[in-house]
Amino acid sequence: MDNGHEYFAVIFSSKRTPGDNGYGEMAERMMELAAQQPGFIGVETARDEHLGITISYWENQEAIAAWKKDAKHHEAQRLGHKKWYQSFSLRVCKVVRESHFERR
Amino acid sequence: MDNGHEYFAVIFSSKRTPGDNGYGEMAERMMELAAQQPGFIGVETARDEHLGITISYWENQEAIAAWKKDAKHHEAQRLGHKKWYQSFSLRVCKVVRESHFERR
Repeated sequence: MDNGHEYFAVIFSSKRTPGDNGYGEMAERMMELAAQQPGFIGVETARDEHLGITISYWENQEAIAAWKKDAKHHEAQRLGHKKWYQSFSLRVCKVVRESHFERR
Repeated sequence: MDNGHEYFAVIFSSKRTPGDNGYGEMAERMMELAAQQPGFIGVETARDEHLGITISYWENQEAIAAWKKDAKHHEAQRLGHKKWYQSFSLRVCKVVRESHFERR
């Protein structure tokens, strides 16, 4: 996608508090809801015992801003601060270059 | 870091082939080696049964290009294509906005 249509990545890396406390269900709901938003391109997520990383891809920064303000997402963010996350970093990034490999 | 010193993220998301085949040791060596490169800021990584995501942060794109061409890293890339990865995506991104949360 060099020199092609630009797009954005939101990198969310987090450390969880102990226990589930409803997190798993909400995370799943938020993934489903995000996927229905205008401008959503895709999502990748991985979590191990140390860290969770979720990267969502968006067509533009307006789509990211709209998702941030979505009412259901806003409630999830509130609960994240209140109980689910020990710490997190959120970075909005512009993708400037990419490459892909697939084994045949 | 809004409006501050710009920096870059390299998002590497991968699906592994079955078995370790020397991957774990090499991945650890590459993390150590990357951390010694000029312009390296930090790294975050998470892997579960579906996907691995490693994000490295760099002061500028020249540092990313230099690390890509590093001889030992080049050999690791070769082996990645040859045996370790079923598929991967690599995206170089410019961080445009960020926020952080830490529970007190």
